[in-house]
Amino acid sequence: MDELDIVIPTIRNLDFLEMWRPFFQPYHLIIVQDGDPKKTIRVPEGFDYELYNRDDINRILGPKASCISFKDSACRCFGYMVSKKKYIYTIDDDCFVAKDPSGKDINALEQHIKNLLSPSTPFFFNTLYDPYRDGADFVRGYPFSLREGAPTAVSHGLWLNIPDYDAPTQLVKPLERNTRYVDAVLTIPKGTLFPMCGMNLAFDRELIGPAMYFGLMGDGQPIGRYDDMWAGWCTKVITDHLGLGVKTGLPYIWHSKASNPFVNLKKEYNGIFWQEELIPFFQSVALPKEATTVQKCYLELAKQVRAKLGKVDGYFNKLADSMVTWIEAWDELNPPNGAVATTNGTAKSK
Amino acid sequence: MDELDIVIPTIRNLDFLEMWRPFFQPYHLIIVQDGDPKKTIRVPEGFDYELYNRDDINRILGPKASCISFKDSACRCFGYMVSKKKYIYTIDDDCFVAKDPSGKDINALEQHIKNLLSPSTPFFFNTLYDPYRDGADFVRGYPFSLREGAPTAVSHGLWLNIPDYDAPTQLVKPLERNTRYVDAVLTIPKGTLFPMCGMNLAFDRELIGPAMYFGLMGDGQPIGRYDDMWAGWCTKVITDHLGLGVKTGLPYIWHSKASNPFVNLKKEYNGIFWQEELIPFFQSVALPKEATTVQKCYLELAKQVRAKLGKVDGYFNKLADSMVTWIEAWDELNPPNGAVATTNGTAKSK
Repeated sequence: MDELDIVIPTIRNLDFLEMWRPFFQPYHLIIVQDGDPKKTIRVPEGFDYELYNRDDINRILGPKASCISFKDSACRCFGYMVSKKKYIYTIDDDCFVAKDPSGKDINALEQHIKNLLSPSTPFFFNTLYDPYRDGADFVRGYPFSLREGAPTAVSHGLWLNIPDYDAPTQLVKPLERNTRYVDAVLTIPKGTLFPMCGMNLAFDRELIGPAMYFGLMGDGQPIGRYDDMWAGWCTKVITDHLGLGVKTGLPYIWHSKASNPFVNLKKEYNGIFWQEELIPFFQSVALPKEATTVQKCYLELAKQVRAKLGKVDGYFNKLADSMVTWIEAWDELNPPNGAVATTNGTAKSK
Repeated sequence: MDELDIVIPTIRNLDFLEMWRPFFQPYHLIIVQDGDPKKTIRVPEGFDYELYNRDDINRILGPKASCISFKDSACRCFGYMVSKKKYIYTIDDDCFVAKDPSGKDINALEQHIKNLLSPSTPFFFNTLYDPYRDGADFVRGYPFSLREGAPTAVSHGLWLNIPDYDAPTQLVKPLERNTRYVDAVLTIPKGTLFPMCGMNLAFDRELIGPAMYFGLMGDGQPIGRYDDMWAGWCTKVITDHLGLGVKTGLPYIWHSKASNPFVNLKKEYNGIFWQEELIPFFQSVALPKEATTVQKCYLELAKQVRAKLGKVDGYFNKLADSMVTWIEAWDELNPPNGAVATTNGTAKSK
């Protein structure tokens, strides 16, 4: 599998890459530095990587760089845009290798690739979970016409140890740890929204890349920690429209440390209000038949965000603008006719 | 929990009750004998049970007995009707006690009761599965307004060893065994249909009982092995309409033996064709606002079955008639004002 890039939003500790070395070294890394461009990220020997800081993003995108968040891990989506590979795996730097119940290190990438290479079943629920896994199949009563499934666009992995809780839940349950290893992969049915977490996430860039915009978060924005959620809601609505699938479950990573719940509350509190309006919005979005590509779907979604969420807060008008800018930038760096755009980062090694 | 009855469609082997004795003895059993009423089912000492054979069903329901299948385990739904308890657990007699990964006997009933007593989450998917389980919660991005959940109407348990495959899959994979213990309970989202298996199933009679009709199968009918599927599709459409939840996953039972795939193919083959029309039908069924009770929903569904599936096969007109008869019989045995109907079976012991 040399068609995959690993996108990492900054690396604050070097143990991270050392721990993942056996699994990541065969792949190309794209590191998107989220803070001060003057700081240097030292990448250990032996990794094949390119690194982009804010100066690179500004240089490459020019005025369109405004759509990429600053001082927030949402900037990672720039990496999706500059990758030339079919698949992307993105992971946070506080996520380590987890162990399966037998004590064996989990090769998260291998499982994500399995998930992406086998179909999804968004149109009907299979009670024995992923019917394409070894030892499983479609159960009695599953219509035969649906057993081909749908192409899988997204593989959403989970986390042992620190669960991905919001600030209020973190505050209420500071000691809760996820110790339950659920040996399942399943398709999130068509028409159902889910909270997509960016900690341990893989997707097919060709099928869904332009919808994986992580929004405007962090520096200068009234919201944080909703970057992956926003991408997840947009992505799910578009995969549903285009007949693609989203899987969740295996693989697990080991989420080593909880972020500060007080800081998180400050970032999240607008989101906690707004999501009460966002969910009904995404649940009722209808995309027109003419929207046959991810880009067309996304631009239509931007239009509806402006029309229906602008009144929730002015932020959503700005976000709708950025969604359009994002698609323009995506198409510039990924010209449809296969022409090559130059996007080299500041550092390259191997 | 003395508000639960266990409904069993015939008992062909006595090991079954002996194996379940520690778990079932505290409960009342309702045995519905599916074949020749002259045959005697010997129930071991110590069980509190009532037994109904075809003669009892005819005597109790009179002409309305036509809605209860003969010589098919679909007759079990008669037991749902005569029960006076809030909860029903139904299980097949080739299902034994399974072991969890630590080697401990699984108390299937206890898990079903947990599932039924805690809410479901049909309106939004929680990636850490049932958020009401110990050690789990709602993840970041789950709208707070939806965290109360919905009342759980159905708990669908799974099977280790012999998976619940249709005849074609049985024929193709005669040796496949389900060995994967997935430690999860999850809600099947609103708007998503699933293949409900009657082997290991619990439900809340008060919330959904009248929709648990297992149809016309077996003797004199052109179809078999779709009794639970039919009940599942009807039930799911109605729980969705009424804002109730359906869970699947734990508990597992040990399914000891595969039924004969050749016999099964004969029973199923009409169903295999018909389900290709049934699924789109159930996916597009719309129940009117005025349908505020399970009975009203079910009668409306019967009307639509006649209108839209009658042209698939004349069988569906007969089935629609039986659906109406079933509701009439249900209401007769379960008068809304709490009056008591007499339904004693032929045998009672303790």
